[in-house]
Amino acid sequence: MIVRFERDGEVRFGVLQDEEISVINGDIFSDYEVTNEKVSKNEVKLLAPTEPSKVVCIGLNYVDHAKELNLTLPKEPLMFIKPSTSVIGPNDDVVYPEVSSRVEYEAELAIVIGKRAKNVPKEEVNNYILGYTVANDVTARDIQFSDGQWTRGKSFDTFCPIGPGIVKDVDPNQLSIELSVDGVVKQKSNTNQLLFKVDEIVSYVSKMMTLLPGDVIITGTPFGVGPVEKGNTMTVTIEKIGKIVNKVI
Amino acid sequence: MIVRFERDGEVRFGVLQDEEISVINGDIFSDYEVTNEKVSKNEVKLLAPTEPSKVVCIGLNYVDHAKELNLTLPKEPLMFIKPSTSVIGPNDDVVYPEVSSRVEYEAELAIVIGKRAKNVPKEEVNNYILGYTVANDVTARDIQFSDGQWTRGKSFDTFCPIGPGIVKDVDPNQLSIELSVDGVVKQKSNTNQLLFKVDEIVSYVSKMMTLLPGDVIITGTPFGVGPVEKGNTMTVTIEKIGKIVNKVI
Repeated sequence: MIVRFERDGEVRFGVLQDEEISVINGDIFSDYEVTNEKVSKNEVKLLAPTEPSKVVCIGLNYVDHAKELNLTLPKEPLMFIKPSTSVIGPNDDVVYPEVSSRVEYEAELAIVIGKRAKNVPKEEVNNYILGYTVANDVTARDIQFSDGQWTRGKSFDTFCPIGPGIVKDVDPNQLSIELSVDGVVKQKSNTNQLLFKVDEIVSYVSKMMTLLPGDVIITGTPFGVGPVEKGNTMTVTIEKIGKIVNKVI
Repeated sequence: MIVRFERDGEVRFGVLQDEEISVINGDIFSDYEVTNEKVSKNEVKLLAPTEPSKVVCIGLNYVDHAKELNLTLPKEPLMFIKPSTSVIGPNDDVVYPEVSSRVEYEAELAIVIGKRAKNVPKEEVNNYILGYTVANDVTARDIQFSDGQWTRGKSFDTFCPIGPGIVKDVDPNQLSIELSVDGVVKQKSNTNQLLFKVDEIVSYVSKMMTLLPGDVIITGTPFGVGPVEKGNTMTVTIEKIGKIVNKVI
C-alpha cells in the first residue's frame, strides 16, 4: 500500500507493510524507487494518499441507497464534484459546519487515477488507475436537499477524508465495505452491489472531462446512511485496503 | 490588466496596456515586479489568466435568467463547481461534445481570488480579490436538465473560457455585460442586476470552502441564453475588462 506521510515537516511517499513504511524516492505517478530507508508508521502522520485536482463523485450507485433516499435510479452514472479543499487525511477531524444541522457519513470505494485519462474505453481503464483507497463522502444532508444541487452540501472543508493508502492489486468489484459510528455498524455491503462498475465509471467520466494523475473518483455509498454528531467517530473499512477513522468536531 | 501568455513555449505573466505587454517577474499572488521587458500582444498566445484549483459557479443570479428557465429564484446563492480541466484561454476553441445536442453560452463576470480565503466577512472581501475577468459558462443544456445535477453538463473540457486578463480597479457591480454569437447580440445586461453581489458571493462561498489564490468564482448569467452550433463564434464583452472570443468546433 502506497501512503503519503509527514515527518519532521517533510512530506514523502512510502510503501506501508505491517507497521513499517519504506520511503519512496521520486514521483508515484511516473518513475519512483522504493528505498531501503524505513520509518515506523507510528512516528509519522499519515496524509491523504493523493492531492487530487478534483474528486469526482458518483451518486446513487448502490440500489439500496437510492431507495432509502426515495430517489429514482439513474440510467447513467450521476456525477458531481467535491473540491480539492474538502480532502483530509485518514485520521483527521471532520468539522461540523455551523450552517448545517444534519451531517451524514457515506462510506465509499475511491479510485485513484494514475495517468492523464481522456476518452478511455471501458476495456482500457486499468491502464489509467493507480489503485484504490477508502473514502467518506461526508454530506450536509439538509443543505444537499434544500439546494437541490448537491455541490454545496458536499463541499465543505474536511468533508472528504481519504486513505489510509493506495492499494493496486485488488478486484474493486468484490470488496466488503463497512461504516461504523462509535463502533456501531451502520453500513455494511459489498462493492459487488455497485450499479455502475469501476470500469464503466472511469470510462464514462473520462468522456466528460480529462482526469489528471492523482484525481479521485468516489463510487457511491450503500444503504444505511445516517447522521453523526460532534464527538462521534466514523470508521470506514474496505476489505484488502484498510480503514479511515475520523472524529467529528 | 494582468495577462498570462505563452511565448516560445514559455509561460509568463505580464501587464497588458494597449497592444503591449510588460513582462512580470515573480508570482502575481505574492511579490512580483513589472520589468522593462516588453512584448507585443500579437507575438504571443494569451492563456487563461489564472489556473484555478476550482471554478465555483453561482446559478440563477440574474432575475431575468431564472425566469427564462422557469426556475425559482434562490434564497441563498446556488452553488456548483466546474473543474480546472474545463478552463481554456480567451481565444481557444470550445469543443462541442458528442454526447450533447444542445450546447449553450452563458456570459458571466468572473472573480479571481488573490489570497487564501476562509470565513471572510462581507466587509473584508476586497482584501481577498485579485481582480475580475470575463467568463463563458458553456453548458450542455440537455445534459444539465436530464441529470438534474448541473455538474456534468457544465464540466466538459473547454467549457470554461476565461480572460483576456485580470482587472483590479473596477466597481464589479456596475459593468455592462454582453454576449454575441457571430456578431449578433444575444445577451445584454449589467452587473447591477446581480441578485447576490460580489461581496455577498465571496463571503458566502468562503464560509463553505477555502478559496485558494487563483481560484475563480463566476457570478451567474443574465437573460438571453441560447444554443450554438459548430462553427459559431461566441464573444463575451464586459465593460472596462475586455472580451473573450471562442469558436465552437
